[in-house]
Amino acid sequence: MSPIHPPLSRRLDGLRSSAIRDLLKLTARPDIIGLAGGLPDEQLMPRDRIALAAESALADRARLQYTESAGWRPLREVLAARESARLGRAVPLEEVFVTHGSQQALSLLAEVLLDPGALVVVEDPAYVGALQVFRAAQARIVAVPLDGEGMRIDALTELLARGERPAVVHTVSNFHNPRGVTLSPARRRELANLAERHGFWVIEDDPYGELWFDRPSPEPVATYSATVIRLSSASKILAPSLRAGWMIAPEDVCRAVELLKQGADLCGSALTQQITAELLADTEWLAAHVDKVRRAYGERAQALVGALRDRLGDRIVSTEAAGGMFVWVDFLDGTDTADLLPRAIDHGVAYVPGSAFAVSGAYTDSMRLCFTTSEAATLHEAVERLACAYWSTQS
Amino acid sequence: MSPIHPPLSRRLDGLRSSAIRDLLKLTARPDIIGLAGGLPDEQLMPRDRIALAAESALADRARLQYTESAGWRPLREVLAARESARLGRAVPLEEVFVTHGSQQALSLLAEVLLDPGALVVVEDPAYVGALQVFRAAQARIVAVPLDGEGMRIDALTELLARGERPAVVHTVSNFHNPRGVTLSPARRRELANLAERHGFWVIEDDPYGELWFDRPSPEPVATYSATVIRLSSASKILAPSLRAGWMIAPEDVCRAVELLKQGADLCGSALTQQITAELLADTEWLAAHVDKVRRAYGERAQALVGALRDRLGDRIVSTEAAGGMFVWVDFLDGTDTADLLPRAIDHGVAYVPGSAFAVSGAYTDSMRLCFTTSEAATLHEAVERLACAYWSTQS
Repeated sequence: MSPIHPPLSRRLDGLRSSAIRDLLKLTARPDIIGLAGGLPDEQLMPRDRIALAAESALADRARLQYTESAGWRPLREVLAARESARLGRAVPLEEVFVTHGSQQALSLLAEVLLDPGALVVVEDPAYVGALQVFRAAQARIVAVPLDGEGMRIDALTELLARGERPAVVHTVSNFHNPRGVTLSPARRRELANLAERHGFWVIEDDPYGELWFDRPSPEPVATYSATVIRLSSASKILAPSLRAGWMIAPEDVCRAVELLKQGADLCGSALTQQITAELLADTEWLAAHVDKVRRAYGERAQALVGALRDRLGDRIVSTEAAGGMFVWVDFLDGTDTADLLPRAIDHGVAYVPGSAFAVSGAYTDSMRLCFTTSEAATLHEAVERLACAYWSTQS
Repeated sequence: MSPIHPPLSRRLDGLRSSAIRDLLKLTARPDIIGLAGGLPDEQLMPRDRIALAAESALADRARLQYTESAGWRPLREVLAARESARLGRAVPLEEVFVTHGSQQALSLLAEVLLDPGALVVVEDPAYVGALQVFRAAQARIVAVPLDGEGMRIDALTELLARGERPAVVHTVSNFHNPRGVTLSPARRRELANLAERHGFWVIEDDPYGELWFDRPSPEPVATYSATVIRLSSASKILAPSLRAGWMIAPEDVCRAVELLKQGADLCGSALTQQITAELLADTEWLAAHVDKVRRAYGERAQALVGALRDRLGDRIVSTEAAGGMFVWVDFLDGTDTADLLPRAIDHGVAYVPGSAFAVSGAYTDSMRLCFTTSEAATLHEAVERLACAYWSTQS
């Protein structure tokens, strides 16, 4: 029991804990194969390289001190070079801003770009962390569905034709969480054109773009327009505990974010930012490292999708899993995945029901499966358990 | 020039960059003795101990992964033990929340405790980082002056008698930034009583409490009431780049902050939080380390205050500097410290004019001097330069 005390803010009304986090607490038993999480595999993280970089970072005491709110300059320089190559233009340092994971970029941007009540367009099903941010910013949220080529730009166009005037359109452009799909090159161009014509911002949220399996991700949406703000992160390619995300945005947006970052937490860690800078700057090592992660995840994705087809082939449609961390499954017979979950847990496997990511759609017959933290044999066993749970409902 | 792009939020109106930060950029020349900053001395930070702890933290790959939003559990356990000893009661884990520096605790708390337009009482002159936070939360800010015993509770009482109903009263209870003073034990009790009687929160912002020189700081305000939320940090006793701050608050406040932290940046760094936990848990080492910092800062404070009295004794009043990082100086002859600053910089010394911290008062004849990063001889030279600048205005 809490003591009697003064009231809390009404701002908290309507905010709620992520259903996924609550689910993960329930399914953390060692006998359950967890496909519900969304973590990169810590066994693939470059522990020894990070330890070396930490040692060398600490050779200079300045790494112990406060750093600039916009980020430790050597990291911003590495990121400017990296993103210049990715975007095909020289990105100046003033357009690079380092945040505490790309989630912080998203939350500070929401304050910079959105007045209360402003319209934000998200994808449906949506990245739940973005919904939390936009709700906290008191935005009005409207969803546009996804298909195999990513955000349905025809639906966005229709929305604009109805007179809706979004301030921001948010897209997870590569290997969508939770939907697994990638926005096609043609739609990227269309989205950027719409943004310029109708005067809205696009936030291109791209933590997974490097994790392609067979062929590189398409050129970023940000290559097509300066109204596209690009977010990415070291969490999925290096390690989440470096808490290094970044944003490529027009200079005045970066300056506004800097003002808010000063109030939010003053600055990031010069220590973890220097470690990140050293690893990202070592391009030969990095290429080999990311390649190893790609190969491992690619094998796991293939194992998962293969097993799903073998055991549930005519009952489901699943994404191809061409990259990223997730496979999205739709049951063709309307199976309610929230109803199925307790039975699946009894059989020793956990996933996230599609409804946890729903904005306008229902997604009651869908589920998200994460393949990153299990070996192929474990994924086969997981699907076996899932299939048993499913078939036991069919008798 | 920024490209033409969609507009930014009106939330940004009225937010401005800290005048101190802008000043620091101007005075970063090597020929200027900087007393304007507010940094702990990196030469006193336990670099080798941190390097050892980093190595041992990285022995476990789990330190590379995402961690709980409320903070890495072993750190929360160490903090619970530490704060239990400080507060004289068993602080349960549920009341301990780790943030990205205590600045993040302040900014998340502002959202949790304040509706837009709510009244916040701050001290005058004020900690500028708190003003930034409360302005961003769209609070109405009223200031209560400080004297040699800290916040003037009589002025707060008067304000309450006029019918003002604050939601939050913010105090830097020990070795105030910028004012240098410490809230007396009697006033601590009075403040807690007023909070309970009138139903407001107190935020006791205490980053400097450990940095006492001759005798320990008084018992925290939080010992007197559960309506007092206590913030502290490892930045001033270990190293800012660990970005480890914490909050002791009722459980429901911690849960509300957790919800917002998920949206703000998901979680902190398990790596730097484990390093912090190891150092704080090594109580024998820590006591010796903090003692060394106290002795060094104490000598510097004495050198600065002594030199000020020698050279400007009848023209100024300065704080005693019984701890912390700052000395506050008032000119008795009305010298305008903002006018004096360019001349001081010409003479090779920089400080922050009192007006930079002003809320209701003017403080045009005051200045803040930071003694942490200069040796005694340098501080003597700094005062010599300051005195020359001052006397050159008197001819």
